[in-house]
Amino acid sequence: VNELRTIAFASDFGAASEWVGICHAVIARIAPRARVNDLTHALRPFDVQGASLIVQAALPYAPAGLAVLVVDPGVGTRRREIAVRCARGDVLIGPDNGLLPGAAESLGGIVAARLLDNERLHLERKSTTFHARDVFCPVAAHLANGIPFGGVGRSIDVAELVPWRKPLLVVEAGRIRCEVIDVDGFGNVRLAAEPDALERSALASASAFSVVTPDGTAEAHIAATYGDVRAGQLGIVVDSFGWLSLCADRASAAARLRIGRGGVVELRRA
Amino acid sequence: VNELRTIAFASDFGAASEWVGICHAVIARIAPRARVNDLTHALRPFDVQGASLIVQAALPYAPAGLAVLVVDPGVGTRRREIAVRCARGDVLIGPDNGLLPGAAESLGGIVAARLLDNERLHLERKSTTFHARDVFCPVAAHLANGIPFGGVGRSIDVAELVPWRKPLLVVEAGRIRCEVIDVDGFGNVRLAAEPDALERSALASASAFSVVTPDGTAEAHIAATYGDVRAGQLGIVVDSFGWLSLCADRASAAARLRIGRGGVVELRRA
Amino acid sequence: VNELRTIAFASDFGAASEWVGICHAVIARIAPRARVNDLTHALRPFDVQGASLIVQAALPYAPAGLAVLVVDPGVGTRRREIAVRCARGDVLIGPDNGLLPGAAESLGGIVAARLLDNERLHLERKSTTFHARDVFCPVAAHLANGIPFGGVGRSIDVAELVPWRKPLLVVEAGRIRCEVIDVDGFGNVRLAAEPDALERSALASASAFSVVTPDGTAEAHIAATYGDVRAGQLGIVVDSFGWLSLCADRASAAARLRIGRGGVVELRRA
Repeated sequence: VNELRTIAFASDFGAASEWVGICHAVIARIAPRARVNDLTHALRPFDVQGASLIVQAALPYAPAGLAVLVVDPGVGTRRREIAVRCARGDVLIGPDNGLLPGAAESLGGIVAARLLDNERLHLERKSTTFHARDVFCPVAAHLANGIPFGGVGRSIDVAELVPWRKPLLVVEAGRIRCEVIDVDGFGNVRLAAEPDALERSALASASAFSVVTPDGTAEAHIAATYGDVRAGQLGIVVDSFGWLSLCADRASAAARLRIGRGGVVELRRA
Repeated sequence: VNELRTIAFASDFGAASEWVGICHAVIARIAPRARVNDLTHALRPFDVQGASLIVQAALPYAPAGLAVLVVDPGVGTRRREIAVRCARGDVLIGPDNGLLPGAAESLGGIVAARLLDNERLHLERKSTTFHARDVFCPVAAHLANGIPFGGVGRSIDVAELVPWRKPLLVVEAGRIRCEVIDVDGFGNVRLAAEPDALERSALASASAFSVVTPDGTAEAHIAATYGDVRAGQLGIVVDSFGWLSLCADRASAAARLRIGRGGVVELRRA
Repeated sequence: VNELRTIAFASDFGAASEWVGICHAVIARIAPRARVNDLTHALRPFDVQGASLIVQAALPYAPAGLAVLVVDPGVGTRRREIAVRCARGDVLIGPDNGLLPGAAESLGGIVAARLLDNERLHLERKSTTFHARDVFCPVAAHLANGIPFGGVGRSIDVAELVPWRKPLLVVEAGRIRCEVIDVDGFGNVRLAAEPDALERSALASASAFSVVTPDGTAEAHIAATYGDVRAGQLGIVVDSFGWLSLCADRASAAARLRIGRGGVVELRRA
């Protein structure tokens, strides 16, 4: 038995929010020996798809364990509260809005799902708007204390869960159209395309690309690393998560291209 | 005996500040087995009242324990450094400026107070401006190690402490005037009024309200949850902390009303 | 033997970044009993010098231990990955770009250095751009588990390391020219000059100064603490890190002087 269960925690509460601290407090009260690993609390509010991609990239680096995942535009509506077990052994806890199936894509997928309808595990006074505090974190803490997965509530069909929407990626001969799935703190523009898209579009031999955005067209050059992008130019690298990423030499590619998360970019041979 | 004492920590240092990390380091050096739970480090500088309200809402979720609380506009002046014991058993440590009495309101109030004048517990080289590092955190760490409350310094009269200023709330027949006590990351406007104010003003039966701000008048509708606010409208919900809160459908109510913390809002039947 | 090794962690990833959480996850997987103390993740990207100063000020408060330090504009280029042992006993891990020698200045300096060329300690799939995840944190975690310093890779000459660039400080009779090494969250302007510079420039008896910036000249008065600065005036205090610091009464001195990190300020008798 693992005495010191770790709970990964990601949300859209903002790194500065006391909501994060209150969730930690709730867990400390129920499971004083549990550890919380804050993955990030800067997930974009309402962006279930983007949040899934970030969590998808992060969780494989953690030991298999518990995770509370919260991007929850439907809080207070009828969306359900669920826990899912993944093939790798992780248990993910959060709203039934596509976030957990998205996150599970890098953990072998979902093998079982349950509603969080065992109210004895929840806080007594339950608000309509802060389910992370009142439901998700208490349930995670009880699981860290050793209650079985089946104890959280009744089993539901995995096929019934709200599915995850994959980001746009259209690969054709000579061009790739794809969504911007993230802009990091340095202004690097992460695209919903991996290097195999270059091969499938017969662009693997190209070194210079036209980057078409709603705002115009720019030129970008394949680079092995950020450090190889020439001064004043745009580069295309494979980023540390395995995505194609547009970057600029010590500057923000997102600002240069005037594009953000959810925007659509087309790559063609220049 | 609790081997692993938890120290809650809230400040106005900013989530990104190395000041937070230095305080963690100081605690780790004196009390390597203590755990620090960062409630938030985004308390608004100089806003002792607002900080108290946030801490008041958060601490009841934590196990009774130690807390270092720092919003300290008077650092370097003659304001005193204190520790207080609350009825629930918590010990709060910080400046004598109203913050601790405010925070203690949700912990049963203060039952004993002491000056931090036992300088053997402080860091040796003491600056005039960073008392969290030099005094508050070292004292908290020594308490986590098991020294008794009486060891921090001499006893003082609880009635002598700088009191907490409650936020404005005026309830009259047909109208409620109250302060904005917080704007959260989603732009929701938290008011210094709980649902009982609606009853006391004979407005409990109203569903539509006029919201009067220094900038003009808007209309808002009572909603059960954020999810029930109609597109383009303003809603009034009871938020997760029990306060009335103005919100907009997937948008910032604060931006819409052009109001922030400390602003005054009047609610009337529309 | 210390069962619970602490790893201090400072980076330019941003407090909100999932990169921080992924690094925590990597450490938790290799060394589940290690503790991570996040000093700050708001180091300014590309500013190796400023980062060194902040870490220099922070690490002496921590117990001697392990530290992962990441400001890495050269990631993906040929800059080397290193670990250094300091006189105090700390082991610092990061890129060979001046950051570690700078940080070590407050830990007694560097007594030994090694390349991180033992690839068995790294993650298996290594990206070209996220060495904190793939190399620095795994190596730190293995050190926390008890492998000897010599196990990280081959020994290199300390004199070969990329040196740290000290910030500008020119002290002449009657004037001090120095760099702004930091602006904190309150807008206080920290200068690369300690109180001894006032003595060496024969300005120790002055109480009023002219502060010359690229934008003009302002007047500032020596104050014992932030609280002693008069309304509407600028003050010069010795800050909690021992640096001279320009401050304003409950306002941002940086905004008033229109100056930021890296700017140059001259102090003369007013």
